Amino acid sequence: MEFWGVEVKPGEPLKVKPEVFRLIHISQAALGEIKDGKGPKCVPIHLKVGDKKYVIGTLSAEDRPQLMFDLVFEREFELSHDWKDGSIYFAGYIADDDSRYPFTLVYDMFTLITSSYSVLRIC
Amino acid sequence: MEFWGVEVKPGEPLKVKPEVFRLIHISQAALGEIKDGKGPKCVPIHLKVGDKKYVIGTLSAEDRPQLMFDLVFEREFELSHDWKDGSIYFAGYIADDDSRYPFTLVYDMFTLITSSYSVLRIC
Amino acid sequence: MEFWGVEVKPGEPLKVKPEVFRLIHISQAALGEIKDGKGPKCVPIHLKVGDKKYVIGTLSAEDRPQLMFDLVFEREFELSHDWKDGSIYFAGYIADDDSRYPFTLVYDMFTLITSSYSVLRIC
Amino acid sequence: MEFWGVEVKPGEPLKVKPEVFRLIHISQAALGEIKDGKGPKCVPIHLKVGDKKYVIGTLSAEDRPQLMFDLVFEREFELSHDWKDGSIYFAGYIADDDSRYPFTLVYDMFTLITSSYSVLRIC
Amino acid sequence: MEFWGVEVKPGEPLKVKPEVFRLIHISQAALGEIKDGKGPKCVPIHLKVGDKKYVIGTLSAEDRPQLMFDLVFEREFELSHDWKDGSIYFAGYIADDDSRYPFTLVYDMFTLITSSYSVLRIC
Repeated sequence: MEFWGVEVKPGEPLKVKPEVFRLIHISQAALGEIKDGKGPKCVPIHLKVGDKKYVIGTLSAEDRPQLMFDLVFEREFELSHDWKDGSIYFAGYIADDDSRYPFTLVYDMFTLITSSYSVLRIC
Repeated sequence: MEFWGVEVKPGEPLKVKPEVFRLIHISQAALGEIKDGKGPKCVPIHLKVGDKKYVIGTLSAEDRPQLMFDLVFEREFELSHDWKDGSIYFAGYIADDDSRYPFTLVYDMFTLITSSYSVLRIC
Repeated sequence: MEFWGVEVKPGEPLKVKPEVFRLIHISQAALGEIKDGKGPKCVPIHLKVGDKKYVIGTLSAEDRPQLMFDLVFEREFELSHDWKDGSIYFAGYIADDDSRYPFTLVYDMFTLITSSYSVLRIC
Repeated sequence: MEFWGVEVKPGEPLKVKPEVFRLIHISQAALGEIKDGKGPKCVPIHLKVGDKKYVIGTLSAEDRPQLMFDLVFEREFELSHDWKDGSIYFAGYIADDDSRYPFTLVYDMFTLITSSYSVLRIC
Repeated sequence: MEFWGVEVKPGEPLKVKPEVFRLIHISQAALGEIKDGKGPKCVPIHLKVGDKKYVIGTLSAEDRPQLMFDLVFEREFELSHDWKDGSIYFAGYIADDDSRYPFTLVYDMFTLITSSYSVLRIC
């Protein structure tokens, strides 16, 4: 596992594509720093996966400057938001795709057993 | 694992059925965008599993525009809500049913061992 | 894993007993629908395990109509609440008890190996 | 896994020591029942691990009567709080220490293999 | 797994580096005790990983004295905050890096098998 984080700037939707056999887990979104006194009241966060669009939450400088998620992506997705004056930071982590695990383990053991054939010298 | 998300439109309860040996994990619900100025104050979210009905939370445009869950479904369920003017988006992920795992692993190893019989040539 | 949910009616504490080698994971509690205008302000939720009593949270129609947990039960427990006019819905999931896993795996492998004795015909 | 819960009474810090190879996972803290009308406004929760002290959150009867954690302890820790008129209930679960798992599995397999030597009668 | 916690003092950014094959999981941040009556209104929390900077949340003495995370670090990171009058406590746990697991298991089994060669005396 490793840290994952992106900055989504105002008016710049960001496409993210996980590597093969890797999952991106988004844990949270947070408003960036407010520069000119007053922060935004209502910032919807948009997610696009394939041709489907979702609202996944709404940030607010006073009431909800950050927001937790428990979302997992194995394919390309696009993040965007409606705040014109600042960035939103998404963070989480990258993990191996567990659904590959049984196959990987068996494959590794097979490789090990056959490659260690001469070491074990069974019969 | 893979991303899962649905839009539940006003007045249209949505039935969802996980595939065999797959689990749907619902992580969150969020109000869709508010079109005509003022959002809803109190939107109960309903869940139906078999013949049993549950309230699993209440959304509110000002105070709780989104809501986290940690719910898992291995069989058909139905989602609905009481907001007349917009959609609610549910998101989460699909995972393999872990309870199958030990069986699967042993089965895979059995297959591997018997199929590699000639390679290993024990005795 | 499979969905788990119960309705706890007013004045009716509910005893729940997980099956052997199964765990009940409670993820949340939510106030049921409010019928006569105004919902309750302060509804403590009580948990009893063995002879010990705990308060695990307080619901409120306006501020906290639902509440997340991350609690696991391997033995009998009792849920109750102080709302006189409605039900509280608890939801979560049932999972296999992981602490059995290593034993189960080894046991399964032993069974597999001995039962496949004639197939492998070692010596 | 099994349920874990403690009551921390006013003015009585509580030391908790996990068993060997067992982890205590604290999922939440909740204010006990308020007896004389008005609950506390600000109750810091203190944690001591070794000689280090931490504040891990602040409860409040009106705004935050409960609070979620995701903390894990493999060694002794001490919980205390500043509420003079009531108890705080901590809850969560006890789990096996996963970091022992690979060793345990291999050890169990070794035991199994050597003890089943005569059953398998390899050569 | 084991408990992890740090105090980040005002004006003193803290660098943290996980050990090799170990992950630091940050679960929460909490304002330390408020000494002189009134706590801070808005304390952004900053995270630096490599040369990238993120805002991961905002604490507030009245509304959000603590905050949950689900962040994982396999490499050095730096935590800092904007509160001039007190410390912020971060807590969570340290875990083995799961992505090493399949390799470790296979490696352990290899070691076991070759070291137990004389015990098993296959042929």
